[in-house]
Amino acid sequence: MSFEIREKDLLGRIGKLKTKSGTVETPLLFPVVNPSIQLVTPQRLKDEFGFEAVITNAYILWKRYQNRPIDEGLQKFLNYDGSIMTDSGAYQILVYGNVEVTQKEIVDYQERIGSDIATILDIPTGWHVPKEKAQETVAETLKRAKAFFKLKTHMDMLWVGPVQGGRHLDLVAKSAKAMSKLPFQIHALGSPTEVMESYRYDVLVDMILTAKMNLPLERPLHLFGAGHPHMMALAVALGCDLFDSAAYALYAREGRYMTENGTWRLGEMDYFPCQCPRCAAATPKQVLDMLKQEKEKFLAEHNLHVCVAELKRIKQAIRDGRLWEHVEMRAHTHPALLTALKRVRDYETYIEKSSPTVKQSGLFFFDSVGLARPEITHYRERLGKRFRPPKSSKVLVLVPQTRQKPFHRSEEFKDTRRIINRLDEKNAGLIHVCFYAAPFGIIPLELDEVYPLSQHEVAMPLDSEVKENVADQVAQYVIVSRYETVVLLDDPETWGSSIKRECRRACAKMGVQFDSLRVHAKSTKEFLAALETILKKSLSNKP
Amino acid sequence: MSFEIREKDLLGRIGKLKTKSGTVETPLLFPVVNPSIQLVTPQRLKDEFGFEAVITNAYILWKRYQNRPIDEGLQKFLNYDGSIMTDSGAYQILVYGNVEVTQKEIVDYQERIGSDIATILDIPTGWHVPKEKAQETVAETLKRAKAFFKLKTHMDMLWVGPVQGGRHLDLVAKSAKAMSKLPFQIHALGSPTEVMESYRYDVLVDMILTAKMNLPLERPLHLFGAGHPHMMALAVALGCDLFDSAAYALYAREGRYMTENGTWRLGEMDYFPCQCPRCAAATPKQVLDMLKQEKEKFLAEHNLHVCVAELKRIKQAIRDGRLWEHVEMRAHTHPALLTALKRVRDYETYIEKSSPTVKQSGLFFFDSVGLARPEITHYRERLGKRFRPPKSSKVLVLVPQTRQKPFHRSEEFKDTRRIINRLDEKNAGLIHVCFYAAPFGIIPLELDEVYPLSQHEVAMPLDSEVKENVADQVAQYVIVSRYETVVLLDDPETWGSSIKRECRRACAKMGVQFDSLRVHAKSTKEFLAALETILKKSLSNKP
Repeated sequence: MSFEIREKDLLGRIGKLKTKSGTVETPLLFPVVNPSIQLVTPQRLKDEFGFEAVITNAYILWKRYQNRPIDEGLQKFLNYDGSIMTDSGAYQILVYGNVEVTQKEIVDYQERIGSDIATILDIPTGWHVPKEKAQETVAETLKRAKAFFKLKTHMDMLWVGPVQGGRHLDLVAKSAKAMSKLPFQIHALGSPTEVMESYRYDVLVDMILTAKMNLPLERPLHLFGAGHPHMMALAVALGCDLFDSAAYALYAREGRYMTENGTWRLGEMDYFPCQCPRCAAATPKQVLDMLKQEKEKFLAEHNLHVCVAELKRIKQAIRDGRLWEHVEMRAHTHPALLTALKRVRDYETYIEKSSPTVKQSGLFFFDSVGLARPEITHYRERLGKRFRPPKSSKVLVLVPQTRQKPFHRSEEFKDTRRIINRLDEKNAGLIHVCFYAAPFGIIPLELDEVYPLSQHEVAMPLDSEVKENVADQVAQYVIVSRYETVVLLDDPETWGSSIKRECRRACAKMGVQFDSLRVHAKSTKEFLAALETILKKSLSNKP
Repeated sequence: MSFEIREKDLLGRIGKLKTKSGTVETPLLFPVVNPSIQLVTPQRLKDEFGFEAVITNAYILWKRYQNRPIDEGLQKFLNYDGSIMTDSGAYQILVYGNVEVTQKEIVDYQERIGSDIATILDIPTGWHVPKEKAQETVAETLKRAKAFFKLKTHMDMLWVGPVQGGRHLDLVAKSAKAMSKLPFQIHALGSPTEVMESYRYDVLVDMILTAKMNLPLERPLHLFGAGHPHMMALAVALGCDLFDSAAYALYAREGRYMTENGTWRLGEMDYFPCQCPRCAAATPKQVLDMLKQEKEKFLAEHNLHVCVAELKRIKQAIRDGRLWEHVEMRAHTHPALLTALKRVRDYETYIEKSSPTVKQSGLFFFDSVGLARPEITHYRERLGKRFRPPKSSKVLVLVPQTRQKPFHRSEEFKDTRRIINRLDEKNAGLIHVCFYAAPFGIIPLELDEVYPLSQHEVAMPLDSEVKENVADQVAQYVIVSRYETVVLLDDPETWGSSIKRECRRACAKMGVQFDSLRVHAKSTKEFLAALETILKKSLSNKP
């Protein structure tokens, strides 16, 4: 196996990819290296910035340098001793409609120059392409992929099998399924560049996840042309392992300054919002006054520093089990990214199946967007399938969440518990206490300390979707359980009318006795007396 | 005037504060300098990190060094040639209950050592303090503040008048009102340290805004003890100009690594999520292996780099008119910060009054949290107060927002416009078109290109609060206007039932004829025919 997964969070992973020139760590960004224009030399990319791999275009090498890279060897030709990936000219097919090379020639060329990772000459679908045309690109890519395995002669290279189909998701699925049957080491999602340039990250979510669901998880997935740090976390969370990008250099050429939160034009800046070694030692004015090439170099180096730091943030987030938090934060740098993250909810079942759900760290819950988190989906599913209330229990007492966690140790709950304990033993045994809380829903007292039920922080006040969602969970629980009475300690200040309404409805549906009692910040004597009366009344009918 | 405001956004501002040692730019962080322990020398703070000012504790100097800082002068004593602020020992009163110095002594001492900015010996309220006790601290602080002006002899120093009251907002207001009548150059919010340590940023919002609303806007406001970069943007947005912090050093001592998104323990890290010059050149493992002092220094320097960069981000955001966006992003690094930002909505009227609402840049709208933005409040208020539909208009046609902006140039609207234009001139003049859109609500066709009505991006799908909020705006508009008929082009895929329900209700209330017609992504022949029929019918009754 050339790819070994070390840590996982959501569909993102930290992995080791073995190439003939060395082992590189994923998620990995290959900076695009153009031997004709090099602001930052490949060797500096490795030594100063830590890039363990770069990508260059074999088709351009073939056209401009012919045999030189073959004679010198690619590493020497680029003066770079890390791993080198080559693209095949497929992007040029997308842009110019055609290339002057056959697949046989470019496969052969990549083998002879000694690429570590190489790409077949696939046919990118593009974005605004009618289905029939898209279908053709998928078919032709697959045909070439199959033909490729008869051309290939070297055994020490990793080959990329691109998935096409564009925004036609059925075609993406078909393409991914077919490509995954072939012995590629790596897959790639074909040219989503236009989708990204139009900020249609929501479409990108569909494309990536459709590919991902139909590809073998143990092979790394490359996202072609994705090099802006503000969207990398999302792409990694969806299972992309490899990225390549010329953006750091292209942006620099246009005077654009990348950050993990967005892009500025140099001329608009009074301050550098960055602590990289270049920005820590200069002001925008000083850089504006530089000569063109010096300015471009400054920006390219800054852009690279930003990309490196964001990748490290993403890796640390995977290691911490907090990739969702990281993605959610980045989603609030551009509405298009939040739109995309909202789309992820359509795939929550798939993500839950493939993600770790037990972690060391607590969970930060901000709003309804977070309801798609695998920890939540997982808990709810498990509660529904595996949890049964104690056999003896006849009366469900529903207690609202408190600021303090675990809830059963809160000041607010103490009084309620005292009232229950005051009942004689037999009667107390008939009562089952569950908390209702965002984001998990129903939390039986006996699970209150289980991860992550008391290891999370929730932003308040709750938004409507969250209230309704939890209310649905409560209703669902009442429906599948077999209590004879439900006593709701209602907290309308936090929950509005949602919990009471849904709870009453569920009880009515199931013929369950329903009582509710309003709680206040401090439990009054009246409240406690009323609670005792309600409980005694509920119990008096029980055998 | 010692303080000059250059740029503003929300209640945040970029300003110039003139001290006798030079002019410094706000928002400004004073790193706390302790002459007994200096990991990073004051001069390096200035030269390498760019800190134009530092703060040190006059009470500690007085106790440990007596006359030395007087004899040498404070700048020489600290070996720092920037501006120097001194605290008075008030924090020690909060922690130890008492100090061994009188206000007269410490005022005199600060004058003699030559502080640029100095603090009276106020009595901090603290957090969990009963009202009566809090009342006493406010009264005693005020008494000392008044007494101070009789003690003061130097004219070239800036003096800080702290506002006390803790979480008792009526006391904060009272304290701020009284202090603002005295000729202090700077005000401060007294010791919110415990509030911040408990992550009760929502309480901090109340405290800061209550102080702010009762203080003169032209004096800078200092927030004592606030030095974590993840909350600075919020504090600046609420109108805090000055911060001081020992956190960079205290955290370093405890092996804690600050970032603008939160804090790590060094031992938990596999990657440094940072591009600062220190982190770009080291791994967590290497730093863990360092000697204690070297490690502490590494962390302190990293922490400082992070603070500097965050302040630059905040300043650039003010300059861009995008401070809200910046705060909203940071609010998604911890639920306590989002809880705090949600609290800001209670103050939307005050914020709208004091913030610029016309900007160069577009507006990013993520969810209902953003409804508190002054641009939105401002537009709605102006629409309600100043806008009147053309006198001739009898029929309001309500058209849903489109992806393309300005809405009236969208593909979707073209057909609708064609139908209207097909009516004869007199009849077309009876029709008034308004769009309904998040987040602004009603957008009359004639305002569709006015800032920021077509300069914004909205995350989709909309959340319930936003839908209901816009529906309320639509209803409100129908109620105050005098149309005879309302024709709603209803888009339930985007808006659910909210717009139709509220619109119908408003029409019923006002005795206005109501018609609705469902729109689809592509307007069909049937839709256009139905629209034409409805419009003709509506017009046929009109004179």
